[in-house]
Amino acid sequence: MINCDKMTIDKINSQMSELMSQLYPICRSITGNGFRETLRILNNYIPLSVHEVPTGTAVYDWTVPKEWNIKDAYVKNSEGKRVIDFRESNLHVVGYSSHIQETVSLSELKQHLHTLPDHPDWIPYRTSYYKDDWGFCLSHNELMKLEDGFYEVFIDSTIQDGHLTYGEYYIKGKTSKEVLLSCHACHPSLCNDNISGLALVSMLGQYLSSLSLNYSYRIIIIPGTIGAITWLAQNESAVPNISHGLVVTCVGDPGKSTYKRSRIGNAEIDQAVEHVLKYSGNSYNIVDYSPYGYDERQYCSPGFNLPVGCLQRTPHGQYPEYHTSADNLDFVQMEYLSDSLLKYMSVINVLENNGCYLNTNPKCEPQLGKRGLYGLVGGQNDKVIDQMAILWVLNLSDGQHSLLDIADRAGMEFSLILDAADALIKKDLLIKHF
Amino acid sequence: MINCDKMTIDKINSQMSELMSQLYPICRSITGNGFRETLRILNNYIPLSVHEVPTGTAVYDWTVPKEWNIKDAYVKNSEGKRVIDFRESNLHVVGYSSHIQETVSLSELKQHLHTLPDHPDWIPYRTSYYKDDWGFCLSHNELMKLEDGFYEVFIDSTIQDGHLTYGEYYIKGKTSKEVLLSCHACHPSLCNDNISGLALVSMLGQYLSSLSLNYSYRIIIIPGTIGAITWLAQNESAVPNISHGLVVTCVGDPGKSTYKRSRIGNAEIDQAVEHVLKYSGNSYNIVDYSPYGYDERQYCSPGFNLPVGCLQRTPHGQYPEYHTSADNLDFVQMEYLSDSLLKYMSVINVLENNGCYLNTNPKCEPQLGKRGLYGLVGGQNDKVIDQMAILWVLNLSDGQHSLLDIADRAGMEFSLILDAADALIKKDLLIKHF
Amino acid sequence: MINCDKMTIDKINSQMSELMSQLYPICRSITGNGFRETLRILNNYIPLSVHEVPTGTAVYDWTVPKEWNIKDAYVKNSEGKRVIDFRESNLHVVGYSSHIQETVSLSELKQHLHTLPDHPDWIPYRTSYYKDDWGFCLSHNELMKLEDGFYEVFIDSTIQDGHLTYGEYYIKGKTSKEVLLSCHACHPSLCNDNISGLALVSMLGQYLSSLSLNYSYRIIIIPGTIGAITWLAQNESAVPNISHGLVVTCVGDPGKSTYKRSRIGNAEIDQAVEHVLKYSGNSYNIVDYSPYGYDERQYCSPGFNLPVGCLQRTPHGQYPEYHTSADNLDFVQMEYLSDSLLKYMSVINVLENNGCYLNTNPKCEPQLGKRGLYGLVGGQNDKVIDQMAILWVLNLSDGQHSLLDIADRAGMEFSLILDAADALIKKDLLIKHF
Repeated sequence: MINCDKMTIDKINSQMSELMSQLYPICRSITGNGFRETLRILNNYIPLSVHEVPTGTAVYDWTVPKEWNIKDAYVKNSEGKRVIDFRESNLHVVGYSSHIQETVSLSELKQHLHTLPDHPDWIPYRTSYYKDDWGFCLSHNELMKLEDGFYEVFIDSTIQDGHLTYGEYYIKGKTSKEVLLSCHACHPSLCNDNISGLALVSMLGQYLSSLSLNYSYRIIIIPGTIGAITWLAQNESAVPNISHGLVVTCVGDPGKSTYKRSRIGNAEIDQAVEHVLKYSGNSYNIVDYSPYGYDERQYCSPGFNLPVGCLQRTPHGQYPEYHTSADNLDFVQMEYLSDSLLKYMSVINVLENNGCYLNTNPKCEPQLGKRGLYGLVGGQNDKVIDQMAILWVLNLSDGQHSLLDIADRAGMEFSLILDAADALIKKDLLIKHF
Repeated sequence: MINCDKMTIDKINSQMSELMSQLYPICRSITGNGFRETLRILNNYIPLSVHEVPTGTAVYDWTVPKEWNIKDAYVKNSEGKRVIDFRESNLHVVGYSSHIQETVSLSELKQHLHTLPDHPDWIPYRTSYYKDDWGFCLSHNELMKLEDGFYEVFIDSTIQDGHLTYGEYYIKGKTSKEVLLSCHACHPSLCNDNISGLALVSMLGQYLSSLSLNYSYRIIIIPGTIGAITWLAQNESAVPNISHGLVVTCVGDPGKSTYKRSRIGNAEIDQAVEHVLKYSGNSYNIVDYSPYGYDERQYCSPGFNLPVGCLQRTPHGQYPEYHTSADNLDFVQMEYLSDSLLKYMSVINVLENNGCYLNTNPKCEPQLGKRGLYGLVGGQNDKVIDQMAILWVLNLSDGQHSLLDIADRAGMEFSLILDAADALIKKDLLIKHF
Repeated sequence: MINCDKMTIDKINSQMSELMSQLYPICRSITGNGFRETLRILNNYIPLSVHEVPTGTAVYDWTVPKEWNIKDAYVKNSEGKRVIDFRESNLHVVGYSSHIQETVSLSELKQHLHTLPDHPDWIPYRTSYYKDDWGFCLSHNELMKLEDGFYEVFIDSTIQDGHLTYGEYYIKGKTSKEVLLSCHACHPSLCNDNISGLALVSMLGQYLSSLSLNYSYRIIIIPGTIGAITWLAQNESAVPNISHGLVVTCVGDPGKSTYKRSRIGNAEIDQAVEHVLKYSGNSYNIVDYSPYGYDERQYCSPGFNLPVGCLQRTPHGQYPEYHTSADNLDFVQMEYLSDSLLKYMSVINVLENNGCYLNTNPKCEPQLGKRGLYGLVGGQNDKVIDQMAILWVLNLSDGQHSLLDIADRAGMEFSLILDAADALIKKDLLIKHF
């Protein structure tokens, strides 16, 4: 596990907190200026290349939709008072609502209102991407207060040919084999889903750019579903390079870490995440792949079947605040968000350092004593090398076991095995196999 | 699961009940006129072709035995009273008893008497196919009543060159690949073992003949062991066509359904039966193959190793009434027999509809909304299509998973997966792979 | 399981007891005259060829060390009294201590003394093979008694060019495929580790020499680690013949039998030992391979990966007496040592008799009745042949299941399956496949 000192974590948390406060008020959707503004802010943290894909572009079975933008929206009562006001919360307007200015009776209005009777204080989040409609969301308590009469409905939105926008940060490593980190950014003021993910990948991008990397890394900031589909359609030639991937979402709530396996189920990314969680010291859940969730649905469609899992905290739909105004800046707690970040860093640490080695002296054990490798203290910088780790690495480095395989077989944490391998490499007792 | 309405079930039960009453009194054995009479009655329900194989015919390691027929048999006491009377129950005579007419002392007679001291009211069932002998079976209570003295023993039987008889109903489907349903009919007045099986296959044959079938079906009514061996020896060219098979026996007792797997263990028939039992709503047992039991022993001998299991209720030998006069018309209850029939129908439904499909749009998910497949209500006849079933079928239809595999992986009943597949086929999102 | 009558066991126990008493007092090490004397005594039980490998011989990554011999050693107090006396226990001297004769202060002396404070009556066992040093071991109580002052230290040892000695008993069987039994003999007065092993292989060697064997057997008596490495280096051409192997160590303590699997994990030797333990009637432990332990570390190094496990009682290091003076003649009990011997004999019995057969009549069951194989009593010497065992052997003898596989699949003891196979072979219903 990656361990950062408290000062470093405090600094990271303060950056993530600042970033989330900036991103929270923006009205995002799968297209439009809110998405662009989000990328502009993120660009202050990680250098993003921004891509604009025109409305109408065919992307597999789908078509890039028209662009939606909104300036203002309200429902005014007969006294001219805004009883529902977009300026107070962008959740008040159903996403992709069409332009409207009309006066309607309360009963007509109610056909277009959405509430959560079980959580009467919360505003739900609703969209209507592919059906021409309009609507407002509000708390059930507010709905109850509406009196009979006529209301002015105004939504100052446009749905026009435009673009689907996405951002990409590509960090070149020693090889072109890459790790995909996919983060959806199509939700308005919802914090865990998925401003938390945006904050995490921003810090992770900074961290990666500071390292000497074996893999190349690609962080993509996309709208959910249509964005993943568009990215795959526009970047199909990059797909064969994807060696591992994670969908980054819902990473800041207080629930325990949950890993949803890739469709492959036992890919190296699955093994790496499960190893990290096992040694994290926290309880966690592992769930098998299912074809419902976030953008792993596209990456794991049978035509791609990529080794992409989802490392999150509480899965979408399994916490009551999900897709409501209660998923706000208070719901995400820095302690959990930075814990998620550390786990992502640990996973990357495993991926970067995993490999398959050959014992150069495969017949019998080598004489460790004459090389200073016998006993518990190894030769490198007074680092304590675990003797059992050395024996396991020697015994299983036959070209068929990666270091991570060895760690799992030995029941030891990856870092112990890695230290042992490093010590053995220095003594020419181990060489890289592939 | 196949669901029949109560009226249909009542009608079926009434037919099965009528059929069992006709079959019960007949004195059957592995050869002879009782077996022929049984086939004649069954022919009123399903059209049987009758085969006669001559005594002495070599069938693998065996030889078709001489034919046994019996007209009457008794033991009379010194007063001329029938104290054991074949006319009261054909179980009274040991099967394949040779002709005898003699006067013997009680102690001599007892050498040839069989009883069940633990069930003093029941008559056991005994045979002596391959050893020239004679004997009587009676209740232990009746044995206790026999007084010292001399008894006239008479068995009016013949053991002569003749034939082994079996019946066959072949139902042609679209392909020559076939499903074998094997039912032994060599027992005299024993109801669960196996008049229940005869009743079940009669109704199943009628049901199959009403369907448009992909597989061909072969129902064989044979004597146990020697009949299966004879059938295999005489029909070896048909064997490669057998894709699936079930031995139909002991299907009407109140015990829970028990499936004995084929020797292969994970054949499609094993998967199909286990799936049906899992979703039956009843508790059930699955047992691994063992080389003891009924005619699966022959079908699963290593030279054939056919995918033939045995779907029964309480396995042979595991209920006290087994092979006694207590396995009578009361022991079989229509509620359990028709439940078994419905399970056989469900298994056939799975086999008929199982298949391997290809997602025609394997890269990313197709847009379900524009095809009316989004949300819980599908487009066909207002049938509700489960959304998760659609996603599972799309995700796993990669040419490597059958619909039954998908159902098992998704943890959903086959019918839901099948409905989803049908809806997707209609929208050209799925095509048959094989 | 092999069953010996009590008289035979008593005789064996008496021989093993006598042998252990002779071997116990000898000061053994990885080289030297104590090892030679040990082989000389063992040669009275099994004919050993003795091999001498010169100091300096390269053996893979190692070099055969100089030879150590010792005549006497003591620590005398100022009154000239031996307060530590090699003549009382050879454990008192650290193995491979260099020659010394010096007078030292108590505090200087203490730098070279080893005790076990947790077991104040016991003398520990220590060595310093690869570091030029000297030292004494004593009980903590004795250490406490040493008064301030000066002590005369004397170790009359030599470390000179010489040889590493090992013994070998090769028993030729019908084939050159061989079973390796490896036993280390480098410890001085330690009884369970490994005089018990020496006693066991001596009796086992006698037993094997009395049999008509399919495999050849090679018992090697070697120093631990360097001896196994030397043997492998000097006998590499013999390695491909090794079909199975066991490291024989710690076989006489009261702990339950423990089998440490080979690195392969599911080799035939693993299957055989686990089968024997399962039917032994005693509780037992099975542990997976790990690269720490005895000479299986060398045989299971990745360049060899031999099917060699370790059948022991309590594993090394897991009993408090391990490597102390408490591992003495009382610690090993004949009841447990002979139990271990019987288990080794049973394992060999399985290996010798295991094989893969073909049912000569694979289509349907053969007619057992006409061959006297029907019913529970078979035809050979009134031996009871289990009917289910006959059916299992027939059903699974398809060239893909060994008799041991069949026993495991049937859940029956190997001997029952073997008897059934023998009966079937006699009736030409089974032939050897390989």
